[in-house]
Amino acid sequence: MEKYRFLLSGSGGQGVISMAVLLAEAASLEEGLTAVQAQSYGPEARGGATRSDVIISDTPIFFPKVRQPNILVALTNEAAGKYLPLIRPGGLLLYDSDLVQPDGRVDARKVGLPMYAAVRETLGRTVAFNICVLGVLLALTETVGPGSIRKRLEKNFDPVYHSSNNRALDLGLELASSCSPYP
Amino acid sequence: MEKYRFLLSGSGGQGVISMAVLLAEAASLEEGLTAVQAQSYGPEARGGATRSDVIISDTPIFFPKVRQPNILVALTNEAAGKYLPLIRPGGLLLYDSDLVQPDGRVDARKVGLPMYAAVRETLGRTVAFNICVLGVLLALTETVGPGSIRKRLEKNFDPVYHSSNNRALDLGLELASSCSPYP
Repeated sequence: MEKYRFLLSGSGGQGVISMAVLLAEAASLEEGLTAVQAQSYGPEARGGATRSDVIISDTPIFFPKVRQPNILVALTNEAAGKYLPLIRPGGLLLYDSDLVQPDGRVDARKVGLPMYAAVRETLGRTVAFNICVLGVLLALTETVGPGSIRKRLEKNFDPVYHSSNNRALDLGLELASSCSPYP
Repeated sequence: MEKYRFLLSGSGGQGVISMAVLLAEAASLEEGLTAVQAQSYGPEARGGATRSDVIISDTPIFFPKVRQPNILVALTNEAAGKYLPLIRPGGLLLYDSDLVQPDGRVDARKVGLPMYAAVRETLGRTVAFNICVLGVLLALTETVGPGSIRKRLEKNFDPVYHSSNNRALDLGLELASSCSPYP
């Protein structure tokens, strides 16, 4: 398989780390792939920025940090501004079209979808925003199957969240259904 | 400061990753240190083992994976058997004295405390076991202050968990009060 290098970025409270852990666990524990997942906390973290790296492969992974993501998720303008220059040529940027206005000329496919607004309108609250983003990511990249994420959602979360998590995942899959897959 | 290299290990469901994220966030977001935190998921993860690495320093950290921990936490026998040989000479092993019987001669200080039983008896359930372990770790190593962990517990968890989380942290601090600090 293609080695996937995800850089997931946004602000504290958007659930970026949780999204990264779910993705890595689904790949490794449910699909038998190898995954590493890492957070670096430097001075920018104290400004409220969150960055989480996930690498998924079917061969061993030696260095757990993503230098050049082929898939970048940016959920704030600050995150997009900071990490878009790192993207691998021909890579994919996924951003929230209400929260982020990506600028800069990069050789990347940019997919903007109103994920935050869709979650708020459909679920009445935004706590599962990150799960919706994950749904879009799965639909676009086909890294792991939605069923594997559902298993991790059931294992990692209190049952009171299962229904809204599953609805948010479905919403992400739907939102992405008109987009062509990457790569 | 001494650079701290933690290897936290146990089985899925013991909250090892959550403990690692709390420790890294407390160090970086509350105390201005630099931290990296990583999970590697290989074949052993599919057997139910969990490993999470945390490095805390006051200078930049270039490689996010812990090769030789100076502080090892082992919450299962399997984890102790696997990771004890990696410990840095003169390092610290913290283990649960009911769940783990560490063997092997290593140049390390071994601290075993009945954390799991204490949480079950005091709180009536074991969901905050990991927070109790974190309390012991803070008391032993003084890496970050308990107040910094309390701030992250408030920010990262639903308010319904605040009381039991804080009691579990206190319990860990108490359990460790008779142990001399490391290093």
